[in-house]
Amino acid sequence: MPYELYYWDGIQGRGEFVRLALEEAAASYIDVCRGSHKDGMGTAAMMKLLKSKTEAHIPFAPPFLRDGDLLVSHVANILMYLGPKLRLAPDSEGQRHIANGLQLTITDFVAEVHDTHHPIASSQYYEDQKQEAKARATDFIENRMPKFLGYFEQVMQQNPSGSKHIIGDRLSYVDLSLFQVVEGLRYAFPNATARFAITYPGLAALHEMVAKRPHIAAYLGSERRLAFNEDGIFRRYPELDKEAP
Amino acid sequence: MPYELYYWDGIQGRGEFVRLALEEAAASYIDVCRGSHKDGMGTAAMMKLLKSKTEAHIPFAPPFLRDGDLLVSHVANILMYLGPKLRLAPDSEGQRHIANGLQLTITDFVAEVHDTHHPIASSQYYEDQKQEAKARATDFIENRMPKFLGYFEQVMQQNPSGSKHIIGDRLSYVDLSLFQVVEGLRYAFPNATARFAITYPGLAALHEMVAKRPHIAAYLGSERRLAFNEDGIFRRYPELDKEAP
Repeated sequence: MPYELYYWDGIQGRGEFVRLALEEAAASYIDVCRGSHKDGMGTAAMMKLLKSKTEAHIPFAPPFLRDGDLLVSHVANILMYLGPKLRLAPDSEGQRHIANGLQLTITDFVAEVHDTHHPIASSQYYEDQKQEAKARATDFIENRMPKFLGYFEQVMQQNPSGSKHIIGDRLSYVDLSLFQVVEGLRYAFPNATARFAITYPGLAALHEMVAKRPHIAAYLGSERRLAFNEDGIFRRYPELDKEAP
Repeated sequence: MPYELYYWDGIQGRGEFVRLALEEAAASYIDVCRGSHKDGMGTAAMMKLLKSKTEAHIPFAPPFLRDGDLLVSHVANILMYLGPKLRLAPDSEGQRHIANGLQLTITDFVAEVHDTHHPIASSQYYEDQKQEAKARATDFIENRMPKFLGYFEQVMQQNPSGSKHIIGDRLSYVDLSLFQVVEGLRYAFPNATARFAITYPGLAALHEMVAKRPHIAAYLGSERRLAFNEDGIFRRYPELDKEAP
């Protein structure tokens, strides 16, 4: 039975971290919201689950994954669940928790990216919090982005199994998520990431390596890969972008 | 060998979610930063690990837990790791991922609580972002807090094993974390939580049940339990508090 991925249609968003793992593993999955209403899919199918008054342990928000009877929510949790099944996780239980810790740092980083354009309220328009967004984006580019990226670069360089991967000596879902982070930052902040490859050579090499993997390359060239846009997490608002220190 | 918990001294903060699980299980643990420098403990011991240029997979930030050679970081990850060992997690793998999903929703909620007083930059003083904090806290009280608490209340009421616990029919680490969330919200937002027990009866009963558990009650009465204060996540700033809708 194919996995069912539930996530908002029209954006890469947080769903993309799960899609990349499923695509790399050539796993059979249905992107439910992008399916057709007459087949029982589409956004209405997702909303029905989220609003269910009877279902046990409904998710708080997308993305979530259905595997048979099980509904698994939150990106890091979905990836920790899928990782061993897709052969994209380390073998030992301990190392799996290390991978999960790295993925949760990515989660935090992604939330901070989101908050650069929505520092006051996700329910309000960007235009209504633009001034505050400028202040938050400045702090993001000057302090937070270098702190997170410097951390991931350091962990790669200190990886006892070699600096080609963030953990272990073969591809994991964390590598795929880091690829997506680099993609997103380059889209949203072209000025702030102009010198990215010089400052973060390990991450830049990882990004290139992932992009060339056959399944990923095919996916990126397919219609299944949505383009970045200003409804997602990584948004290109020139007024929020500036050179990094 | 006792577990070693690494977290900032002087605040409950995110470390408290881990402490509550260790205390409930009467596990042997060392709160490293609260130990003495001459015993190789204290905050310096934590900083040494965080700044290590050789250690594999250093954590991005506290809290983290050392169990033998393994360093596990992020609250939800630590609790997922400890849960089965402390008998505070469901038995099946699937249900453990459900518990982890719930815990990650708590993580997101706690991050939003933090951002009520730091909407622009964690590196800056509250006083320097007070106006933005008021706007964000208003949105938190009017929209986000009811959305999260309403969600947890609904999940409890729809728990197929009974509405005394958020998952399963016995205490889990997620119950302990929800207790802490209720404690914290009542401390930080006495006005916004004035009608808490009426609006969220399941959560209020859960809070009371946890507070009465012998190990938790002993812990709360001990010196190991730090008081809430205005350096932690849950801060009592009267100007950010107002009646909930």
